[in-house]
Amino acid sequence: QGTRDHPPAQAALRDRLLAAVVACFKRHGAAAIDTPVLELRETLTGKYGEEAKLIYELQDQGGELLALRYDLTVPFARYLAMNKITNMKRYHVAKVYRRDNPATTRGRYREFYQCDFDIAGQFDPMIPDAECLKIVHEILSDLQLGDFLIKVNDRRILNGVFAICGIPESKFITACSTVDKLDKIPWQDVKNEMVGEKGLSPEAADRIGEYVQLHGGLDLIERLLQDPKLSQNKLAKEGLGDMKLLFEYLTLFGITGKISFDLSLARGLDYYTGVIFEAVLLQQENDHVEEPVSVGSVAGGGRYDGLVGMFDPKGRKVPCVGVSIGIERIFSILEQRVKASGEKVRATETQVLVATPQKHLLAARLKLISELWDAGIKAEMFYKKDPKLLKQLQYCEDTGIPLAAIVGEQELTDGVVKLRDVATRQEVRM
Amino acid sequence: QGTRDHPPAQAALRDRLLAAVVACFKRHGAAAIDTPVLELRETLTGKYGEEAKLIYELQDQGGELLALRYDLTVPFARYLAMNKITNMKRYHVAKVYRRDNPATTRGRYREFYQCDFDIAGQFDPMIPDAECLKIVHEILSDLQLGDFLIKVNDRRILNGVFAICGIPESKFITACSTVDKLDKIPWQDVKNEMVGEKGLSPEAADRIGEYVQLHGGLDLIERLLQDPKLSQNKLAKEGLGDMKLLFEYLTLFGITGKISFDLSLARGLDYYTGVIFEAVLLQQENDHVEEPVSVGSVAGGGRYDGLVGMFDPKGRKVPCVGVSIGIERIFSILEQRVKASGEKVRATETQVLVATPQKHLLAARLKLISELWDAGIKAEMFYKKDPKLLKQLQYCEDTGIPLAAIVGEQELTDGVVKLRDVATRQEVRM
Repeated sequence: QGTRDHPPAQAALRDRLLAAVVACFKRHGAAAIDTPVLELRETLTGKYGEEAKLIYELQDQGGELLALRYDLTVPFARYLAMNKITNMKRYHVAKVYRRDNPATTRGRYREFYQCDFDIAGQFDPMIPDAECLKIVHEILSDLQLGDFLIKVNDRRILNGVFAICGIPESKFITACSTVDKLDKIPWQDVKNEMVGEKGLSPEAADRIGEYVQLHGGLDLIERLLQDPKLSQNKLAKEGLGDMKLLFEYLTLFGITGKISFDLSLARGLDYYTGVIFEAVLLQQENDHVEEPVSVGSVAGGGRYDGLVGMFDPKGRKVPCVGVSIGIERIFSILEQRVKASGEKVRATETQVLVATPQKHLLAARLKLISELWDAGIKAEMFYKKDPKLLKQLQYCEDTGIPLAAIVGEQELTDGVVKLRDVATRQEVRM
Repeated sequence: QGTRDHPPAQAALRDRLLAAVVACFKRHGAAAIDTPVLELRETLTGKYGEEAKLIYELQDQGGELLALRYDLTVPFARYLAMNKITNMKRYHVAKVYRRDNPATTRGRYREFYQCDFDIAGQFDPMIPDAECLKIVHEILSDLQLGDFLIKVNDRRILNGVFAICGIPESKFITACSTVDKLDKIPWQDVKNEMVGEKGLSPEAADRIGEYVQLHGGLDLIERLLQDPKLSQNKLAKEGLGDMKLLFEYLTLFGITGKISFDLSLARGLDYYTGVIFEAVLLQQENDHVEEPVSVGSVAGGGRYDGLVGMFDPKGRKVPCVGVSIGIERIFSILEQRVKASGEKVRATETQVLVATPQKHLLAARLKLISELWDAGIKAEMFYKKDPKLLKQLQYCEDTGIPLAAIVGEQELTDGVVKLRDVATRQEVRM
């Protein structure tokens, strides 16, 4: 349940998609690492908040207690701490596991790929953070997924907002998770949840509402830096200062057109400590609607400066920032697009079918195909002794093989091969 | 225990190795499929004989009872039956899981990659089987692993030998597993095990010994076809006839020089029904030894005509033959070789470092690197505002980045970039 086989056409499309993402990660100088699917249960404990119940555990068959990895971030942090690495730019493309309620039509599975790029190390502020956003921008542009928007916020700004609105620190995380729903439900419902379920006062909720419904660019950052209450909060001020710096760098990258500083963005995971971001695809629902409609998040990430320290015996911190590309949702979109366009994705890369038009020519086919393979040419032949020529040519058309190399009795006598272009039916003897 | 992280240099080497293997599979027209790491426990039950105890099971957390896949063959058979596919050539490169005693120095892990190529379908005899052997030959040649030998046998021939030596059919499989040890221990020990542990009579064991110590080529096949007892056994006769055909095809492929018909080859798994094979690397231990010494199996496979039927409600069979490349052992060998040669495997593919020689030039670097990324060039820069030029150039040397694109105050004024070849220290302004 919630898993699937990828048949050849899907696997080929997915490989194409993953190759584009990896190409971008490599373009940014990242190195690949690989970690086991199995992690010690204790490694995953206490990292995912409420979501921990979705972790797959292995049966205790003797030996260590194990679980399947839930994401690639925690294994990366564990890897850094274990190997005392304080400086690394890595990517990792691999499957992760969540015992979630699958919603396969929306691309939500229990086994799915994550494509992560992370920068670990103590650096000058916001330079690696800006690169992560540049990467999201490049990948979504490269894949031609249509218009998109990258929302940016900072956990420190959110916490500052909660503080000046009179929320006790113990309720920051739960308030965060309610705010995070603002992209799906209207403010009134968010407020009701805050007051009803989370026990905030209506006045506090209203004060929060004034802030978290704001979104904009550099102008909004400047305005909030002048905000009499928010500018008094140390965390918020730091966050806003860094946000301003981030926008400077993004301006140099020329990508601010797709970036929105959005105070409603909160992100679910506990471990974020600074900048957070999320990319959504926009869709012009129809001509009446003026604002483009979000069709869901396709990338997300942020800064997590405390996670590596949780794995170090002495608690030594390694600041990190990273991005995860939501490959499954993008894959669903591309798959629908391929279906709609009628494009046939080839499942193989075969260049030539070695064919014979008469009987008793298996030996000739085996000799020729062997020569082709040894020359590095992608070639197939039928596994029948005496296949019909028509069937062989039909197979080429069905599977998109562009050429047929035909050896008949005449060709054998003349010491040539007849090369046929399957589409045009033109033939040359060579 | 028995798993490992692949740091960047290893991950890069492994990617290179996997790419070579996949290139060969694609050259033979195979399509990729992907199946989940999780399978239903019942899918794996009864497929692996004694080895079943090594299957990793997941905790029962409600819902289906799951296990981690043990190999890629059973999931492939399950996939074919589930989708009623009767004809397919596929490859699959992925990790499998075995709760074995790890022997990591010999490349034996609990999580490891398998690289499988299989041909499913009803075809004329031995044509797909010959292609599997050709593939092993190509991969081992491409990887330049040194001299190798591909041992070939047929389960039907072995069963025929057991039958004419008076072994009851119920003991065929256990006799097989003892015979399979002949490449590691001498005949006398194998005989002792047959008589002592497996309860065969010494006379029967001796009769088996006369056969299973034979190895050779077409001449041996011909001789056994004339063997008065063996030629009377239906299964053995079929197996020998097909073996002869196989050698004909392998002769057309020009690879019989590396093939040995070896009656001691038995292979561990239950599901083989016909041709079986295994490739070993040979090593000239020293000048005194005349026979090359085997350093272990690096590929294996065979025909399994009954496995798919086990997953079909009506038991419909789909004949299959396939090969699995022992990538972990090959990886160990390549890694040792790289170490010995002192070759430095680059972990990244970065082409150029964007560097500055003076302070206050971060903006210039950000602008230039953004242009390079957008042009598809693999580029890195330091995440410090004002890094020292010497450190930047040192980084290029350490990580193998061939070029540095330097923007200083003068270059900014002149509207140029200074491109430096890190190895030769030559610079051009452009």
